[in-house]
Amino acid sequence: MDIQTTQRRVKLVRERMQAKRLDCLIVTCRENVTYLTGFLGHDSWVVIGRGVTLLTDSRYAEQAEQECIGCRIVERKGAIAKAAAKLVNRVKSIKVVGIEKSCTLATAEKIRKNLNARVKPIADIVENLRQIKDSDEVRAVRTAAEAAWEALGRTLIYLRAGMTESELAGILEMQIRKLGMQIAFDTIICFGPNGSQNHHQPGGRKLLKNDTILIDFGARYRGYCCDLARNICFGKPNKLYQEAHNVVRQAQKAAISKVCAGALPADVDAAAREVIEAESLPVHGHGTGHGLGLAVHEEPVLTKTAKGRLKAGQLITIEPGVYVPGKFGIRIEDDVLVTETGCEIISKDRNYGFSSERMTIVESR
Amino acid sequence: MDIQTTQRRVKLVRERMQAKRLDCLIVTCRENVTYLTGFLGHDSWVVIGRGVTLLTDSRYAEQAEQECIGCRIVERKGAIAKAAAKLVNRVKSIKVVGIEKSCTLATAEKIRKNLNARVKPIADIVENLRQIKDSDEVRAVRTAAEAAWEALGRTLIYLRAGMTESELAGILEMQIRKLGMQIAFDTIICFGPNGSQNHHQPGGRKLLKNDTILIDFGARYRGYCCDLARNICFGKPNKLYQEAHNVVRQAQKAAISKVCAGALPADVDAAAREVIEAESLPVHGHGTGHGLGLAVHEEPVLTKTAKGRLKAGQLITIEPGVYVPGKFGIRIEDDVLVTETGCEIISKDRNYGFSSERMTIVESR
Repeated sequence: MDIQTTQRRVKLVRERMQAKRLDCLIVTCRENVTYLTGFLGHDSWVVIGRGVTLLTDSRYAEQAEQECIGCRIVERKGAIAKAAAKLVNRVKSIKVVGIEKSCTLATAEKIRKNLNARVKPIADIVENLRQIKDSDEVRAVRTAAEAAWEALGRTLIYLRAGMTESELAGILEMQIRKLGMQIAFDTIICFGPNGSQNHHQPGGRKLLKNDTILIDFGARYRGYCCDLARNICFGKPNKLYQEAHNVVRQAQKAAISKVCAGALPADVDAAAREVIEAESLPVHGHGTGHGLGLAVHEEPVLTKTAKGRLKAGQLITIEPGVYVPGKFGIRIEDDVLVTETGCEIISKDRNYGFSSERMTIVESR
Repeated sequence: MDIQTTQRRVKLVRERMQAKRLDCLIVTCRENVTYLTGFLGHDSWVVIGRGVTLLTDSRYAEQAEQECIGCRIVERKGAIAKAAAKLVNRVKSIKVVGIEKSCTLATAEKIRKNLNARVKPIADIVENLRQIKDSDEVRAVRTAAEAAWEALGRTLIYLRAGMTESELAGILEMQIRKLGMQIAFDTIICFGPNGSQNHHQPGGRKLLKNDTILIDFGARYRGYCCDLARNICFGKPNKLYQEAHNVVRQAQKAAISKVCAGALPADVDAAAREVIEAESLPVHGHGTGHGLGLAVHEEPVLTKTAKGRLKAGQLITIEPGVYVPGKFGIRIEDDVLVTETGCEIISKDRNYGFSSERMTIVESR
């Protein structure tokens, strides 16, 4: 991250602080801290008063020196809430301090207790800015997605009857790591009927001939996540599965065709559902998509009841699914950039054969 | 988890609820939900009113049916805070509802908005119970630790000059997965001077001949974490490193010798520090240890300012370190059960050669 980016972001935060009459803002949400400073560690806060201060501890001091630009770094000794309050209390002119509603009640209480100024919980100042991605952010997610596909390609050669879901998850995550990426979230791998539990944790289930495999996974690059899902047949897919896969594919296409700046999230969601319902298949119980970036799940959500309209620069997943208990689960997920005129699939797989256009079939062995 | 365990735990929670005059408790913290119901999924709450209800959604419905015993499972459609409030509002006699201080301000606000009863934030009802482990919990951490050592042993045969920290982390995590365990937390692997950033994320640094390696990692079994650290020399250790390793080893021993029910956490912390300070080496900036269980970090903490006394049944880490910027970092970490008469090291490595008694040396290749 360059200094212009951090300065631009802090400036936008300051405008919003002013509108809410805040003299100071304590940023506690980890992704927001990264967004404003470039710092990728944990347990650190940003205090925006007259200056911008990263409050960290000895564990992260070296890392902060390397990653943060355009802000002062303070290495605290004691509890972070106390240290933040002390920092703010030094400036007598600060009367109203914003804290983020994503912080815990316990944290808020500790800040309040130690602060001389009035505390005002606020929502989404930084989160709203984070919704609209700049080109560097889009590039980071694209880089993560390219690595993720490559990792998946390198993983499938290890598929063997008798291996466990957990083992396959381990190999996939190792391949992601080997490519220099981090793991975006706990990899979901479901063999056969486990696919219908659509957030199943990979376990001891062994891979059988003709099993279907649902893989939902992501790589993280410079803090930015991709979130992808594909379905693989280890042998011969049966007819129902093939049909259902085709329907989910059409559902994803229908949803993607509705994505553009100004579209209603509920319309995108409905487009996917209608395709699945028309074929009398069980439609996914989860939303059709969600924003992603520094967090795997951020605003906006694409559900029936979602508010607002899509905006150019938002990065969202489109991930319809069909789950048949006792049989299988299918989910196709890609990452899509909302543009003024439509959208761009930024998780397009150019080299590794994981097009959402077709099912991946691996011969049983 | 058996039904007697859940019933015993819920009974203890009810006693504490009564003492705080709560008619109902909404449990939002994930580890607390697991503790009370056995459920290992995400995004689900427990409502303890007249009955015990797990509030989940379609993604986890099947998993909940398999994992939860002794509680009713309700599959919500809309937002979880609204669904929880609705559930509580049905019972007219409920006047005061406890919510956990570990929930966010936003969540608390949503619960308050939808609830007819009065809301009372409370801290640590379930967390306090979780501090004292029963034999099944200790067994789970022990199982996790045994697998972790085995995974580390299987990993070291892949050590090669030129491999990256990230790749080594991937291999270690794969071996953990292959053994049917989950990853307890982001693996820390530091080559050479990166070790002094003691929460360094594994990156692109390549392994060189005679590099030292700091590995801090953990496996998770049935939700329970182990948390271990060892130091490996890839070739010939230099004299300062050897001396420092020996000092950290002595510091860990000194701390462990102080652990027993009734001991002051600050005394345990001081015992480790004194050994390191006596040798004029830089003493660790972090605490000497912390509780662990369903969470990697829980109460108690072992720091200078820690309150209370150790209790039999607590599971804690003992992890002193020496960090020399630009040169290396060393941390030796084991997991220890507090007993009435002393303690038991439950991360003792019986088979894989990772005794804290000596440095592991792997020949450069």
